[in-house]
Amino acid sequence: MRQAQAVRADPPAQSDAAGTLLNPRSIAIVGASDRSRWSSMLVQNLDATGFEGRLALVNPKGGTVHGRPAARSCAEIGAGIDLGVVVVPQDAVIDVVAELAEAGARSAMVLTSGFAETGEEGAERQRRLVETARARGVRLLGPNSLGFINLAENVFAWATPLRPLSRREGVGIVSQSGATALFLADLAHEQDIGLSHVIATGNEADLDGTVFLDYLVDHPATRSIAVFLETIRDPAAFIRSAERALASGKPLVALKVGASEVTARSAEAHTGALVGDDRVFEGICRQYGIIRVSSVEDLLVTADIAARTGMLRPGGLAVLSNSGGICEIAADRADACGLMMPELSGETSRKLRELIPGFGTPHNPLDLTGGIDPLRTEQIVRLIGGQEDYAAVLCPYYPVPSTPDQINERLTALHDGLSRGLKGLDIPGLLVSYTNAVVTDLTRSIVAKSDMPYHACGLDRALTALAGIARWSERKRSFAGRENVAAAVEGAGQGQAARPRSEHEALAFLAGHGVPVVPAHLVRSREEAAAAAAAIGGPAVVKIASPDIAHKSDIGGVILNLDGEEAVAEGFARVVEAARERKPEARIDGALVLPMRQGGLELFVGCSRDPQWGPVLAVGLGGIFVEVLKDVSLRLLPVSEAEVRRMLGELRGKALLDGQRGIPPADLDAVAAAVAAIGRAALSAGPELAALDVNPLWVRGDRVEALDAYFDWNAG
Amino acid sequence: MRQAQAVRADPPAQSDAAGTLLNPRSIAIVGASDRSRWSSMLVQNLDATGFEGRLALVNPKGGTVHGRPAARSCAEIGAGIDLGVVVVPQDAVIDVVAELAEAGARSAMVLTSGFAETGEEGAERQRRLVETARARGVRLLGPNSLGFINLAENVFAWATPLRPLSRREGVGIVSQSGATALFLADLAHEQDIGLSHVIATGNEADLDGTVFLDYLVDHPATRSIAVFLETIRDPAAFIRSAERALASGKPLVALKVGASEVTARSAEAHTGALVGDDRVFEGICRQYGIIRVSSVEDLLVTADIAARTGMLRPGGLAVLSNSGGICEIAADRADACGLMMPELSGETSRKLRELIPGFGTPHNPLDLTGGIDPLRTEQIVRLIGGQEDYAAVLCPYYPVPSTPDQINERLTALHDGLSRGLKGLDIPGLLVSYTNAVVTDLTRSIVAKSDMPYHACGLDRALTALAGIARWSERKRSFAGRENVAAAVEGAGQGQAARPRSEHEALAFLAGHGVPVVPAHLVRSREEAAAAAAAIGGPAVVKIASPDIAHKSDIGGVILNLDGEEAVAEGFARVVEAARERKPEARIDGALVLPMRQGGLELFVGCSRDPQWGPVLAVGLGGIFVEVLKDVSLRLLPVSEAEVRRMLGELRGKALLDGQRGIPPADLDAVAAAVAAIGRAALSAGPELAALDVNPLWVRGDRVEALDAYFDWNAG
Repeated sequence: MRQAQAVRADPPAQSDAAGTLLNPRSIAIVGASDRSRWSSMLVQNLDATGFEGRLALVNPKGGTVHGRPAARSCAEIGAGIDLGVVVVPQDAVIDVVAELAEAGARSAMVLTSGFAETGEEGAERQRRLVETARARGVRLLGPNSLGFINLAENVFAWATPLRPLSRREGVGIVSQSGATALFLADLAHEQDIGLSHVIATGNEADLDGTVFLDYLVDHPATRSIAVFLETIRDPAAFIRSAERALASGKPLVALKVGASEVTARSAEAHTGALVGDDRVFEGICRQYGIIRVSSVEDLLVTADIAARTGMLRPGGLAVLSNSGGICEIAADRADACGLMMPELSGETSRKLRELIPGFGTPHNPLDLTGGIDPLRTEQIVRLIGGQEDYAAVLCPYYPVPSTPDQINERLTALHDGLSRGLKGLDIPGLLVSYTNAVVTDLTRSIVAKSDMPYHACGLDRALTALAGIARWSERKRSFAGRENVAAAVEGAGQGQAARPRSEHEALAFLAGHGVPVVPAHLVRSREEAAAAAAAIGGPAVVKIASPDIAHKSDIGGVILNLDGEEAVAEGFARVVEAARERKPEARIDGALVLPMRQGGLELFVGCSRDPQWGPVLAVGLGGIFVEVLKDVSLRLLPVSEAEVRRMLGELRGKALLDGQRGIPPADLDAVAAAVAAIGRAALSAGPELAALDVNPLWVRGDRVEALDAYFDWNAG
Repeated sequence: MRQAQAVRADPPAQSDAAGTLLNPRSIAIVGASDRSRWSSMLVQNLDATGFEGRLALVNPKGGTVHGRPAARSCAEIGAGIDLGVVVVPQDAVIDVVAELAEAGARSAMVLTSGFAETGEEGAERQRRLVETARARGVRLLGPNSLGFINLAENVFAWATPLRPLSRREGVGIVSQSGATALFLADLAHEQDIGLSHVIATGNEADLDGTVFLDYLVDHPATRSIAVFLETIRDPAAFIRSAERALASGKPLVALKVGASEVTARSAEAHTGALVGDDRVFEGICRQYGIIRVSSVEDLLVTADIAARTGMLRPGGLAVLSNSGGICEIAADRADACGLMMPELSGETSRKLRELIPGFGTPHNPLDLTGGIDPLRTEQIVRLIGGQEDYAAVLCPYYPVPSTPDQINERLTALHDGLSRGLKGLDIPGLLVSYTNAVVTDLTRSIVAKSDMPYHACGLDRALTALAGIARWSERKRSFAGRENVAAAVEGAGQGQAARPRSEHEALAFLAGHGVPVVPAHLVRSREEAAAAAAAIGGPAVVKIASPDIAHKSDIGGVILNLDGEEAVAEGFARVVEAARERKPEARIDGALVLPMRQGGLELFVGCSRDPQWGPVLAVGLGGIFVEVLKDVSLRLLPVSEAEVRRMLGELRGKALLDGQRGIPPADLDAVAAAVAAIGRAALSAGPELAALDVNPLWVRGDRVEALDAYFDWNAG
């Protein structure tokens, strides 16, 4: 029969599973009781919002619960259950999920806690829960979830009191923490922000946040996605979803906490503290246009503004206010968060003076002063918003009234004029309260009536948001897609070439992958050394060649700036002698003789395998920039040359690339080509490569050469 | 008679003037009319708040204005006027101020605009206004002010609608911008924040913001001071007031905008972009413990929290919440803004587990979970707050209800328990809403009834505030006072010693002021050069000595690393020849022979005269740190050695001072002594010194030497 069929079916695909779970036509709350705050609130929320599906309650004692008849078991319900909501004690959860499966449910949402978050015993219970669910084709939200609110399709399956949410599209929220999801929902009420979904994923025993994120990428009511992340359980899936979000033009805003110690420790083993987990995530945000924020307020406000502006065209911000002080604060803040504020053009200024006779010299930001004629504001906004180097117009202005005594004719006229002007632009126009403002039912009704583009978040958070959205827009424009790069990499193959075991082999390996390397002569005698010197024909460097000596300088194994055949031959003898003396057990292949490179810039290029994210590329300026300042830019591999140029642009010391006394400007295309090739080489070395460091990559104008390279392999 | 006496009296001293102006027993509004929004709002605000003094209105036509009889002139009022509020048209302002003086007023507040803010004509009008006032012993607030609110003594002399402000002590606000002052006052209402004063200083034609700031330092109702600054008209007075505020333990929080272009350009002439106006102000904030913020919200919230915590003892922050997510966000944010969060001690953990059986391993931040017994919270807070390495306890928790439906027994019990615990601590304890929360009359009444230590600003702003307060507290502890340093400097005198005109004289001047300098031999012949080499007895440097050659290296006037008498003698000949050839017009004193210094660290020490602030000291690591990264710390001179150590600690590249391969750790005391001595030398050179650069100051362990020095003097 129907139930039996359901139990045997394969679980739906991930994204289908999310959709199925979030769109039930019938819900059974198992464990409902008058004493349960959870079941009580679930029923109250579903009832208050007019859930149109069927709601059944299950309590072993039957009888009346929350004023309605309760079934004694899932089976007793007698009709298909789409979603089972599990609020029974932890020991009963697994059996209940099995019963739900028997009763036809494809989805279960487990609010009960006491699983993996409590330690090993709970983790074992959670494993059995997942096994049970998987075996029976049931997909899980939770355990330890507070539920979900599907505003778009009106399913308020949420277990705590909620403030009213009237707007039913906009930001889709995914949060591992139920409490944080609730704070976001409450804040959305208080700021009159539209939401499409609020999903608390809890322990993510089965469906994780990425599954829901991915689902929201395709949901028409979701205009932007806000995620609160503690752990990312499936990094590859997360990257795919982030890339899909970027490709679809749906901004993804993330508040991520809790760097993993394991990851950081592991990364530290190879590149010191450079590739801490959080820095990798920061690089991923830059790579995939994820707008990263640092507070709950910024998460919601940024997602809200992004939902309403969408992608910004290239350009800067125009600011209009009626307060000189606010104009100055706006200019300073915009500058601090990297938002350009281009000056008014001569033509805009001229037209503006025509429009407002007696106005002084107008600037961006434009102080309209307190005395502005409200009837002029629409035209002024349109005039400024028409200047083509603006990407958005922001009006920090009086908040929309929250009490009747704040309403007056002039304020209404001002708000109307500004609103009409802002809505009539080809670019986004925002009316924002000077500071975080109170939103009451009166405020909501005024805003709704005129469809005012109003944000009650205050200037500060609005600017933070716009700066993030501008970066995201720029990233969206420049993003070619990781697959394209991946395709280009395929030529390099995942070949199992012999592992380079020495500096000489490392340089040869890189050269074989298109990386420009210094011409290095491996010599085994004074005579060969002299011949190499002759071939080089200028100052040379001699380094001991041994697979067993990592820090060559420390044992006197490197001699710089040797001029002439005799000097190089003598140098050869000295490094070999030094090695034999200081490292008697080391195998010695001979020595490398290379031309001495000077008068250039040195970069550090490191590839390592992050235990969570996989192959990561780090680029920085060499020496103190990497060692003292930790000034590196990170990306997941592979990267395109264009991406490497962006990485170089992120370095604090990037001015050094423009040239210094005696050192010509670096050819950034040549640098980018070399770095991208190093990245390809690292990928083609396969998953056993733990790290590949090129240090330094020497750059002088358009001459780029790897002067030293070091491969480290996983044990075994 | 009485009026005549008053007119002849000297104007009161600045601080008395502020007190007199803010505490009138009688006010006359001159230019009051039923059509004037200003006079109408002034009367309404004064009436609504029960102003206890006498309020008179002046209108040339007499009759009834705002429902009360109006005098035809100031003279007609017939009794002493303490404060005249001027709302007449701009052309009449000066005459009215004269009339007010005749009628005995010692203070006038001019709301009328159209003065210096409108250009040269207005500036001239403003000059005449000030002349008139000064000649008659009247002190001015404004013009272009919106008034002031003296909550402490109940004088709401404010010209726009106000939200109710019930708390009458706490933050004192001084703002040049009237609009910004109003936003702050409105925000204080919305967040239930106590204010002592709100003063909009407008154009500051006479009394400026610093005068009021200084007044508030001594006012018993003012617990902290929040200033919104555009321009600082009297830098020396500002510094004195900031220092008084610090000494008195009254936190000063500043939102400063608008770096002066003139200042920046001027500073640029000497030290490139290093000493921009804003960076000097940043240095001043660090020096005088001014807590600088970047938004209107942070200005008020930080001042409010500072008003309530006062100085924090050394230590870190303990965080308790009922949400794991919020705990993680708090930990990340605290780290990002430099707040320590020490772990719970073994003893605290043990007691905590006794208190809450079944609790896992407790940490700071402490997730109490949603299930915590409210009756336990007071004890938990007290237990944690008793650990001695905490300076404050922060509880991000449910907001205090804003509507009756949010009130429930459990929440009330939680808030009560936490409040009692927090209030009972020896250190500040704050209950803060998770995110920015709504405050209604209900909220206010709940908070007032139990005197709850509640902040509705949200976790994000609370942490920003606490980080600033912790820095301020640390500064207060370490601040010895500028005067002490100044006293130490006196020994150096303001002597008019001969101006050093060459590198050799510059080094000698520094040596004369206790700066360790490299022993430099001025030689005029090959023989003298050889003798100098012999005296040095190791590798030497030869530099051309000429008052006319600034960039010696560029003309081949510097030769490094010469070994032996012959080499040095030859070097002497070469640099002299190079100079004669490349700079034939230059006066040549000979050459300097100095020992070659290697294997050390190089610092940059620059003293310059900021046109606004006076003598400024810049310290940075040499080379790219200064040139590329602009990594310098700035202070006003004089500075103590302790202050120099703090400056060194602010450098991004400070890890270099800990030593590197082959370079021992720098002796920071020795470095600080040398830098402080350079500062004293610069001061003693007198006000005509434009700049003194020591570049490099060479450091190797405890050996510190100025290797090169350059004085620049103002023309004339």
